[in-house]
Amino acid sequence: MLHFDSDYMEGAHPAILQRLLDTNLDQTTGYGSDPYTARAARLILDACAQPDGKVFFFVGGTPANATTIDGLLSSVGGVMAAETGHINVHEGGAIEASGHKVIALPSHDGKVSADDVAHYVDAFYADASNEHMTPPEVLYISQPTELGTLYSLAELESLSRVCRERSIPLYLDGARLGYGLAADGNDAQLQDIARLADVFYIGGTKVGALFGEACVVPRPTLLPRFVTLMKQHGAILAKGRLLGLQFETLFTDGLYGRIARNAIEQAMRLKRAFTAKGYRLAVDSPTNQQFFILPNEVLDRLAQTATFEVWGARGETETMVRFVTSWATTPQAIDELIAAL
Amino acid sequence: MLHFDSDYMEGAHPAILQRLLDTNLDQTTGYGSDPYTARAARLILDACAQPDGKVFFFVGGTPANATTIDGLLSSVGGVMAAETGHINVHEGGAIEASGHKVIALPSHDGKVSADDVAHYVDAFYADASNEHMTPPEVLYISQPTELGTLYSLAELESLSRVCRERSIPLYLDGARLGYGLAADGNDAQLQDIARLADVFYIGGTKVGALFGEACVVPRPTLLPRFVTLMKQHGAILAKGRLLGLQFETLFTDGLYGRIARNAIEQAMRLKRAFTAKGYRLAVDSPTNQQFFILPNEVLDRLAQTATFEVWGARGETETMVRFVTSWATTPQAIDELIAAL
Amino acid sequence: MLHFDSDYMEGAHPAILQRLLDTNLDQTTGYGSDPYTARAARLILDACAQPDGKVFFFVGGTPANATTIDGLLSSVGGVMAAETGHINVHEGGAIEASGHKVIALPSHDGKVSADDVAHYVDAFYADASNEHMTPPEVLYISQPTELGTLYSLAELESLSRVCRERSIPLYLDGARLGYGLAADGNDAQLQDIARLADVFYIGGTKVGALFGEACVVPRPTLLPRFVTLMKQHGAILAKGRLLGLQFETLFTDGLYGRIARNAIEQAMRLKRAFTAKGYRLAVDSPTNQQFFILPNEVLDRLAQTATFEVWGARGETETMVRFVTSWATTPQAIDELIAAL
Amino acid sequence: MLHFDSDYMEGAHPAILQRLLDTNLDQTTGYGSDPYTARAARLILDACAQPDGKVFFFVGGTPANATTIDGLLSSVGGVMAAETGHINVHEGGAIEASGHKVIALPSHDGKVSADDVAHYVDAFYADASNEHMTPPEVLYISQPTELGTLYSLAELESLSRVCRERSIPLYLDGARLGYGLAADGNDAQLQDIARLADVFYIGGTKVGALFGEACVVPRPTLLPRFVTLMKQHGAILAKGRLLGLQFETLFTDGLYGRIARNAIEQAMRLKRAFTAKGYRLAVDSPTNQQFFILPNEVLDRLAQTATFEVWGARGETETMVRFVTSWATTPQAIDELIAAL
Repeated sequence: MLHFDSDYMEGAHPAILQRLLDTNLDQTTGYGSDPYTARAARLILDACAQPDGKVFFFVGGTPANATTIDGLLSSVGGVMAAETGHINVHEGGAIEASGHKVIALPSHDGKVSADDVAHYVDAFYADASNEHMTPPEVLYISQPTELGTLYSLAELESLSRVCRERSIPLYLDGARLGYGLAADGNDAQLQDIARLADVFYIGGTKVGALFGEACVVPRPTLLPRFVTLMKQHGAILAKGRLLGLQFETLFTDGLYGRIARNAIEQAMRLKRAFTAKGYRLAVDSPTNQQFFILPNEVLDRLAQTATFEVWGARGETETMVRFVTSWATTPQAIDELIAAL
Repeated sequence: MLHFDSDYMEGAHPAILQRLLDTNLDQTTGYGSDPYTARAARLILDACAQPDGKVFFFVGGTPANATTIDGLLSSVGGVMAAETGHINVHEGGAIEASGHKVIALPSHDGKVSADDVAHYVDAFYADASNEHMTPPEVLYISQPTELGTLYSLAELESLSRVCRERSIPLYLDGARLGYGLAADGNDAQLQDIARLADVFYIGGTKVGALFGEACVVPRPTLLPRFVTLMKQHGAILAKGRLLGLQFETLFTDGLYGRIARNAIEQAMRLKRAFTAKGYRLAVDSPTNQQFFILPNEVLDRLAQTATFEVWGARGETETMVRFVTSWATTPQAIDELIAAL
Repeated sequence: MLHFDSDYMEGAHPAILQRLLDTNLDQTTGYGSDPYTARAARLILDACAQPDGKVFFFVGGTPANATTIDGLLSSVGGVMAAETGHINVHEGGAIEASGHKVIALPSHDGKVSADDVAHYVDAFYADASNEHMTPPEVLYISQPTELGTLYSLAELESLSRVCRERSIPLYLDGARLGYGLAADGNDAQLQDIARLADVFYIGGTKVGALFGEACVVPRPTLLPRFVTLMKQHGAILAKGRLLGLQFETLFTDGLYGRIARNAIEQAMRLKRAFTAKGYRLAVDSPTNQQFFILPNEVLDRLAQTATFEVWGARGETETMVRFVTSWATTPQAIDELIAAL
Repeated sequence: MLHFDSDYMEGAHPAILQRLLDTNLDQTTGYGSDPYTARAARLILDACAQPDGKVFFFVGGTPANATTIDGLLSSVGGVMAAETGHINVHEGGAIEASGHKVIALPSHDGKVSADDVAHYVDAFYADASNEHMTPPEVLYISQPTELGTLYSLAELESLSRVCRERSIPLYLDGARLGYGLAADGNDAQLQDIARLADVFYIGGTKVGALFGEACVVPRPTLLPRFVTLMKQHGAILAKGRLLGLQFETLFTDGLYGRIARNAIEQAMRLKRAFTAKGYRLAVDSPTNQQFFILPNEVLDRLAQTATFEVWGARGETETMVRFVTSWATTPQAIDELIAAL
């Protein structure tokens, strides 16, 4: 059986495991105060061209999102997100659990538009009677989005400008950022993101690490007492070096980009094969998540060869499905899947 | 330089790393739905003699404590703990961040007494005017405590009885439980704890794992919708199998107990050497944390050989310090430390 | 200038002020433990035909909603509401501040449909992968709604049945309940509401009281330790008798219903006059809030005679507005407004 | 039967009721946007000599405390208070419910000492390892305290200096402030308090109003978006003018001070009578709360004449009790109590 359920089905890239082995009995202090973590942070800030920034390492995306957004908001503020955004749907209400409302904006294939943001914020603050409503204080986006789509550089420039003109931090969830950076046609590089977002994280869990997300804060005064807030959110790993070691490895010799590129290449092969067979795209995604509308009998047949996610019926006879590739997807697996189409 | 700062200074027991290597490219579904995690849970429940229980795996102690206690409390309830308890002091206010008060009880070398609990709860509920105060709904203890001390079986029996008579769940933080179980003179075995506590966790981070705490719930109806609550707390690991694989290894062939025993043996050697030199114990701990009152010149001299934690001045000329051994402490390290005394 | 901005522009019905005067120097204990409050609760429970229920008095609607919903939800649960619902829009994120998500359902002129609720809940619990999403645990509705519309008895029966079959408490916000009960064509009486809702409040602030909402809980075990939760929410009035005295007055000799009826009669006169002039209804409301789409020049002209709420542009040349009558609206005021049309 | 249970047993000073009557059918907009509230704020700011300040009106002390402290704290911060402080004991965990820890400092007859504050804060921030602990960000005191005691002007000057040197807002709970200002020997006037505290409230509920606390913020930038935060806390009264009308009355022609003085005079008569009989003071209070240690047979005898609060046994044969006078206490009531001693 082939598996395309998600991009976190394997362990880690072998270079990461080797690094854990090589350093296993070294003794270091805890909570990220070790030299591996310091080096990883330095490598990431260099790659981002943000020498004065700080990097905070999290074990997963939900604690990264919940802690960062809590830190950016006042007691009364809310975070805007596409209605399909991960924080609005799939994080168990973690934002609300820290006392904050998620303000849902329209989703355009997973993306929010700068116009929508500008209009919402301006209309909100223009009307004094809105004093009884939740003020929009932060914008959350993800790159790539939940639907595999990408913001263009121009779109990110617009969002960033709209936000900065209104003193609203732009937070970018990069759980799959590697796959976005490696996508054909992507024109928003890591340094662009670091320049345009106010806080963002570079996902490791889905791009070669056992686990780990590197949260980059170009101007650290934006998040005072953030280590304590991380502790409050239960989001500090005792052996913090495990995060440092993994990101040090991923950001050495371009490993992160290289392994992400494999996922893209296999995803594009898969996409071409499906469309060549006449199956419709549910969304036109340039990244490692591919969404199709399949006739139900095709779905049933494929389910004998591969596992994948079913996203719900589309009419009586068709179903939306998701196939995901990753750093670990082999060309052979794609060959076999194509053969089964 | 020797290091006795904490019991999480190294990576993991080699058997765990080997297991990660061996399974690295296996494909499994996420969030703990994999077969390794199922096996680990089974091994732990067998060891606890709690066949109907469930095990939830966390990455660290703070998310385990905060999530579990939030799940056990009503919106209005508070959790009792020794004033020295980890949740009351060193978790960044994580309990309060989920909306709950920590009700501090007197600490007797890190322990709470059953009499204190009974008296507090009974006095609280006896007085209707307490309706404006936070009701004590859960008791938190740790075994061993923050000060390395242990509850005897009789003490745990008393606490459990006092709690059950009052319908108050007893939650036991076992961050260092392995070291408690392996201590000389300990008479509370794992099955006793599983019988007497309502929820407890078996610590892995400090006892041989890279990270991980196994939260055991003998009667799972006590924590409905707990997986969702874990997600809300940002406490679910995407590649949950990493937790399963580690605990599967630790609970195979008695590894957990064996490596914990090493820490105890080295701690006792260290304790004997210090007391033979005439240095006073700050607390008489039978476990892997040892607390001494050292003359300041001794402290200064030892600091040239070893790192350890300074817990504050005791008068003008002495200081309280903590030395910690672990599963990874070598006899040679203790030899060298003793030589430097 | 005439005022139709809201139904809380005056003080209280004179009978209430007289009652405050008559009892002013009586001495009673605090927090609602006084005999006036006991009598008010008894009168309300009798009117509801719920002799075993309890009544909790709040100063306003937001604390009533936030406290009650917090009490009904587990740590992880969310409350369903129409997307236009007051708790979702105009309470400053009070639900989220207590840690809970508001799950927005489609609004049908302010109402939620039983079908929508059944479908949402059933689909949610049918899919195990929803374990990372907020479980819908409570349904919030208001009667009348934010748009002045009313649920029919049949609709309330359906909602109640759908909820009870799924063990989901139905919470009804009755900020303007008096005006709903007094409306022409209303077929859901107070005893129906008490039978069909699990918790609801009878609004006083907008119906003759200085302030106050009477929260009725027919089966009080549903909300254990609720007084403490009220205190936690800052929602207990020290001189609780002020709430008791007002509701005692409102529920003596049918005062509540009688004064509500005046608001309806004046609202219907106003509605007939506007429609006779050819102005369109924005919503067809049978209660004391009336919504019209006015040509902008009409709006400008009326603004010289009366104050009212502007709800936003409808195209280039028209605007949606709200006119509100109350227990205190005089026939003369309506005469003058009609003359100005 | 005489009643000395509390200072909120009656309604309001007759002048307040008269003012409510006189204005009852005036129409005003809601939420404190009316002219009465504006005038009340102006009168209070003038009395405080803080022309640039703002005043926010609350219905009660718990919402005032919880909202203000939430507004002053960062997500991660805690509030220091005497262990006996109202927020630490008698507010149902309202501070924790908004996510914040109460950091208990030693109580010196209800007061905290500037030395204790300075030491706690300095020790906290001196030690980097405290990054996992709750940072003290606000100081809460009450004047008078829960035990009726008063800070001297010199003590308030010290506390204020210690706090300002450390950028820690000083918040003063003045639930009974009137009685403190009117006490014999008090040397901290209202303008001193307004100068030394960063936020404080002037209590009305216990000093002549039906309800109401006027929260004064001399430098309003300290609490941005505070109206929205009040809404989030359910702490905005719809008919806000009721608060404005009451404080306008209390701050006209010195009424607030005059009625407070009556409570002090009656309390001092009561105190002298008890001590003349040889009964010991539990605390030496100059304000309207008086605490005695009574032999149990005296307590039993007095209980036939008067109601009062029992604060718990003091040994086998004595009990601590509290007697409270108020603006409404008559000389006759004190005469009768003294006769019964």
